[in-house]
Formats: sequence, C-alpha cells, structure tokens
Amino acid sequence: MSAEIICVGTELLLGEILNSNAQFLAHELAYLGIPHYYQTVVGDNPERLKQVLAMACDRSNILIFTGGLGPTPDDLTTEAIADFFGVPLIERPDILEDIAQKFVQRGREMTPNNRKQALIPKGADVLQNPGGTAPGIIWQPRPDLTILTFPGVPSEMQQMWRETAVPFLKSQGWGQEIIYSHTLRFWGIGESALAEKVGNFFNLTNPTVAPYASQGEVRLRISARATSEAEAYPLIEPVARQLRKIGGLDYFGADDDTLASVVGRLLTKASETLSVAESCTGGGLGSMVTNVAGSSNYFLGGVISYDNAVKSSLLGVQPSDLEQWGAVSKPVAMQMAAGVRSRLSTSWGLSITGIAGPGGGTESKPVGLVYIGLAKPDGDVECFKYSLGQTRSRSSIRHASACHALDMLRRRLLVRPTNNHFPFSVTIHE
Amino acid sequence: MSAEIICVGTELLLGEILNSNAQFLAHELAYLGIPHYYQTVVGDNPERLKQVLAMACDRSNILIFTGGLGPTPDDLTTEAIADFFGVPLIERPDILEDIAQKFVQRGREMTPNNRKQALIPKGADVLQNPGGTAPGIIWQPRPDLTILTFPGVPSEMQQMWRETAVPFLKSQGWGQEIIYSHTLRFWGIGESALAEKVGNFFNLTNPTVAPYASQGEVRLRISARATSEAEAYPLIEPVARQLRKIGGLDYFGADDDTLASVVGRLLTKASETLSVAESCTGGGLGSMVTNVAGSSNYFLGGVISYDNAVKSSLLGVQPSDLEQWGAVSKPVAMQMAAGVRSRLSTSWGLSITGIAGPGGGTESKPVGLVYIGLAKPDGDVECFKYSLGQTRSRSSIRHASACHALDMLRRRLLVRPTNNHFPFSVTIHE
Repeated sequence: MSAEIICVGTELLLGEILNSNAQFLAHELAYLGIPHYYQTVVGDNPERLKQVLAMACDRSNILIFTGGLGPTPDDLTTEAIADFFGVPLIERPDILEDIAQKFVQRGREMTPNNRKQALIPKGADVLQNPGGTAPGIIWQPRPDLTILTFPGVPSEMQQMWRETAVPFLKSQGWGQEIIYSHTLRFWGIGESALAEKVGNFFNLTNPTVAPYASQGEVRLRISARATSEAEAYPLIEPVARQLRKIGGLDYFGADDDTLASVVGRLLTKASETLSVAESCTGGGLGSMVTNVAGSSNYFLGGVISYDNAVKSSLLGVQPSDLEQWGAVSKPVAMQMAAGVRSRLSTSWGLSITGIAGPGGGTESKPVGLVYIGLAKPDGDVECFKYSLGQTRSRSSIRHASACHALDMLRRRLLVRPTNNHFPFSVTIHE
Repeated sequence: MSAEIICVGTELLLGEILNSNAQFLAHELAYLGIPHYYQTVVGDNPERLKQVLAMACDRSNILIFTGGLGPTPDDLTTEAIADFFGVPLIERPDILEDIAQKFVQRGREMTPNNRKQALIPKGADVLQNPGGTAPGIIWQPRPDLTILTFPGVPSEMQQMWRETAVPFLKSQGWGQEIIYSHTLRFWGIGESALAEKVGNFFNLTNPTVAPYASQGEVRLRISARATSEAEAYPLIEPVARQLRKIGGLDYFGADDDTLASVVGRLLTKASETLSVAESCTGGGLGSMVTNVAGSSNYFLGGVISYDNAVKSSLLGVQPSDLEQWGAVSKPVAMQMAAGVRSRLSTSWGLSITGIAGPGGGTESKPVGLVYIGLAKPDGDVECFKYSLGQTRSRSSIRHASACHALDMLRRRLLVRPTNNHFPFSVTIHE
C-alpha cells in the first residue's frame, strides 16, 4: 500500500518554478506514515499524462495529482483521468453554483471557460477548494485505487489537503502512528554554533532532533513517532526543556511563533505600546509587526523616514547631526527612536537606519552597516550596531535588519535591568 | 529525441529538501532546446531505480541522473545503472588518485568507502567533479541512449553541468536552437478574463504563448525557438506588441518588472516624488516601494498610521470624520493621502486603510474591504474602493492592497486627464 505524487505542469518541465508542492506532499505523507516511493512530473499533455497514470496504477494505490485544474484549455488533468478510466465527465451544478458565487463575491465576471471547472468524472466526489475556483476530486475508480487531485496553486492545494484530504486518509486507516514535531526557534546564534552546543542531541532516535537554518534564524525540530499527541508529549517535552535551557536568550519561540508575535505577546503582557521609525527597511519592520493579527492592541504606528528631511520634520532628528554623522549613524538612530516614541506617545520606540545596498556603500560605511535605536519606557535610548556583510542581497539585509531590531526589543522586554548593565553584548557583529 | 531527469534520494521522498536540481536541469534543457517530458524522483533503492531506468530507456534518449554518487552504502546509482545494463564496474586509478589528492588538499583522512567513488561502468567516460570527491559518468550503453550522472549537491552538479555536460551536448548537435522567453505582466484582470481576450494566441507554435497567475498577477509567457536572440526577437516582438495592445492598461511590465519598479520608472521620468500613509498594510506598501534599488530618488517616506490617534496627529485626519465614518472609509483614506502628501511635500500621496482580518469585520464593513486614497500633484484627491473577499488570508489581503495601490498610481501616472473623466472605472471590485 503506497502513495505516488504526480505533478502536472509544463512550467515545471521548463524549470520556471520549483516543485514545492511535491515537497509539501512528500513531507505530509511521511508525517502520516504513508509509504511513498515515486514522484513524477509530466507536462500538460493528455497522452503522456495517461501513460504516467497507467504506470502509477500498477505500482501505487493512492495517486495524488497537482496542477492542470484551471480554466484554460491546457488544463486537462481531470479530462485525462476520466478518459483513462473510460468514465464520462459530468457537470456538477453545485460546483458551478460555488464558482459563480466566488466570482460574485469578488465582483468579477464569470467567463464561459470557468464552466469547465465544474466537470468531474461520474462517480467521483468533490474535493472542495475554499480558496479558489478549481475544486479537486476524491475518486476510487477501482477498489484498490484512490485518486486525489489538487490545483497547482500551493496555498489552495495546502488548505484542501489539510481540511479534506487528511481527514479522508485518516478515515481510511492511515496516520494511526504519526510523527509529531515541535520546532524550537533561535535568533542571534549561528547554525554551527548552536550545533556545537546541542550536538549530542542529534544522536537521539525517538524523538529525533534536527537543525535547520534560514534567513538568519536557526531551528531545532524535535520529531517523535507516536499514536497520539498525549503519547508524543512526554517524549518531546523533556528534550525541548533541555534545548530551551541551552539556547538561553537566543531561543525566542516555538512552532508558529515569529519574532514579531513573541514581541507582541511580551508587549501585551506588560501593557506597553510600540512605535517604529524606519529608514533602510522602508516599512518592512512595521509590516512584520502588523502581520500579527491583533497587533493594533500594542502597535500604534510609525514613520518611514526614507529622506533626511523627513527624519527632521517628522522625527525631530537634528539636521546638524545628519550633517555631521550622516543618516546611517548612532546619533541619528537614537534620535529617530526617541523621536517616534515621543511623537506617538508609546512605551517603546524602535528605529532602523542602514545601508541596504547594492549601491551607497563607502569604505567607512559599507553595505550592510545598520544601526538600530531603542527608546525605552524610562526614556533611556540605546543603540546597536550591526555589520550584516556585503555579500547579502538588498532584501536579505532589509529582512535581517528588521529581525535584529525585533530581537533586541524582545531581549529588553525579557530582561529588565535595574541599571545599565545588561547580561549580553549590546554590539553584535555577524 | 528527448531527455529525462531522474533524481535519486530518499530525502526527496521524505520532503526534507526542495528538488532544486530538477528545476535547474529543466531550465537548462529548455534553454538548450532539448525536449524534456518527464521528471522522476525515486529513493535510494536499486530495484525501484532499475524499474524507473527501464521505463526511461523506452521513452527518452538522454537520461540525466542526480544523487546517489556518494561514498555511503545507500549511494547506489552507479551500481544500479551498470547492473541494469549487465556491465561490470571497474575501478579507475585516475579517479582514485584524484579523490586521494582532494583529501590531502583538505587535510582530511580518505576513508576506505571513498574507494567506491572510483568505480564506473566499463566503457563509460568520467564526468569530472572539480568541486567534490564524487565524479559522474557520461555513458552510451546503446547507440541511441546517453546517460549522465551527477552528485546531488547542487553547487557540484551545476559546475559539472556547465563545464562538461553542456559542451558534450553541444558536440552532439544540441543547443543550436534554443528557447528565448519574454514574459508580459498584467494587473487588474483575472487569468480567465485575460485568457478569453487572448485565447487565439494559445494556438501559436513558434512563438508559443502561455498564461500563469499568482497572487493576483497574471503573466503571459512568449517563448520562441531560435538559433540566436537576433532571430528570436522578430518572432517574439510582433506577438508581444499585439498582447500589450490587447492588455491595455492592465499590462504593466515585462520580465523582471514589478508594479513598484514600474511606478518608480514613471515617477523618475516625470521628476515627481511619492509618500505613503498606511493603516492595514502597516508598512508593506513602503517596503514594496523601497525594495527597488534607487527608490530614494523618488520616495521620501511615509506614515504608518495604525492607530486612529496617529491618523489625526501625523496626518491631520479629522477626528470627527474618524468618529462619523470610521477608520476604514472614503473620507479617511482621502485625508490620509492628502495629509501625507502635504506634510512630506511630495508630488503624490498614496494611502491605504482597510480590514485585513481575520477579525474586525462587520456586515457593513467585511474583511477585505479596502479604501485607497491618491492625492495628486494638482492637489485633487481620489478614492478607490476594493472588496478583496473574505476567503483570503490576512497577508494575502495586505499584499493585494499594496499592489492595488501601486497599480492605481501607475494608471494615473500613465494617463494624465485634462479633466476628471478617466478612461476607466475608479471603483474596482475583485
């Protein structure tokens, strides 16, 4: 009994997009404990698609298709599957109605070719697509064979998988013993440095511990195989506790936590508010903060002071300091933070000024030089200097700058000093 | 005559890594004009690997393997291939010497299992690996069949592909004709609606035209097979011209253009400046604008007025209007735009206020309701209302809001009315 993933789309054969759907589905199948030995990519071509289907039927029992469910003529996955099994396509009025409603909802005109998406093989069930117009199917053309189809759009496919396909597969007896994972997230420490500290955990078997790094963040994933969450918890939690302890202040959260959501929780807990003043990130920090639902409870707003004149007019930065030290400097970062805090009357004011590149770097102020200012509830202002390196891209430097700013605020929210001696360095180079 | 990509690795079946090798090779094959109809992923299992090989031999003439060339016991791609064709593996002293030297260079001990990497099928040529210890092979076990193997490490695979495989394939007559692509980008029209308008182009053969949609943007890719760019251009340009004409104002740019980069070009051309006032996007619009290198030439900054008090204090929005109409309303959007334009003394002021959800929606103001204000150089202020639907995620609504705002500015920059009659609706629902 095994599953097979078949991704349909000429754009995959042309190398225009990464096959992230295959990775998502492969990971989900592993999680559900469903064996999976083959992945195939084939173009929007009915004959080749049917040839792949014929082979897959002989070696697998669950065929998972992605792509080719759209309204255009080259979307032909459903037709090819029905044709292969010699079953007619029938138009489902309920799907047609659902598609029509979605167009009304979005105030768009439904075109004739959208009717096509209401056709499914006779006898197949509809796999609802809440996020889009193209539904999928769940179909057992033979007792030993189940076919699931999904659109190629990852967000739609993933929602359909979680809400409909997984419950269906579990109802078929899969996923009795599954892999429960708990991810610990760290900021301010490199992957190899963290690996050095926790290397002995990598030899564990159940749970296993594996490190991942991306965009400056390091994660440790703890995975336990168990029949229930209640059984997995006592396997995972003791290991998690030790790893959190080792991580110290570099550990910032778990699973779906982000630096922004953690900062939000800490601000809410302290009944404090935040405002931001951004130069090189141009709004990226505010965007990160407000990507958290409910952030209006603690985030009042900010100023994007891209131009020096705005730094002075809206934030009260001294023109003489801009003149003397330049926009990317400690005095300016500190005045930006203090300025936004006082003008928006918030507990904390957080500022970023730096050189995101690719141009604008000098020998004394290279690309990647970033100053972060933090105005605190007591009125005191701190400044942190970062050298993010000249090899990173503009967007990577902007992203890292916003993350570092949130991280410093997080550390200050966690550790309230009675004096100005902090338990960690205020200048971080990386 | 066609090629097939076969990626070997259990980590791919477990969804631990994205199959970036398949994308790289697919893109390269398309570029060289080598037809490519199938991609297969299979685990480190000799029987299944041979089964995949058997099928691939029947339908393709160039088989490109990645993965399974390492020193560990589960690396068995080379053995499986040799075994399938009934050819013995022989140890190549030159490879052994090369591996030994590489270990010396790195000051590491060569382990016995590295000898394994010096074994290749009798009669095969070595595909040198300058970047690692595992070489690949180029082998023609049959006159009509060429097999190339590469390690799974992307950097090693790519270097080997460029330095050895491409010259080999060209020596076989490939790459004389390659595929040149040109992508047209559209905003403000759905995929099916655009497909209706340009459907007849989808039947072209050289160049071909294919539609793609993601995050509200629709793309048409024009691909021509030609021996040189000079030969491709006259094939592509006439089609592109017609499609741009049909797209009208919904066409915004080509290839690497973004709404933000196009708006930037138009502002630069007009020597005009921009400032933004953001509520629900919380800085996302400014971040999009400043993600364009050189945006400091036309973007001065903005105000993130997340809290109503900030809308009044920093933007001059009338508290009475906030009271009467609410923060998400036409009057507030217009006052935000006018306020940021005057306070930052810019040519244009662009504002966004809306309900990003998931909470905060009401019957009269549902999630997805967004007002965009545009204060123009002549001081006139317009407002555009969008209903982005209640099924979208918070981040998707925020992203679409910023894109719609940039798109309206783009349209106004393109079409300067002599009066207030615009050639298109000022209220767009989607």
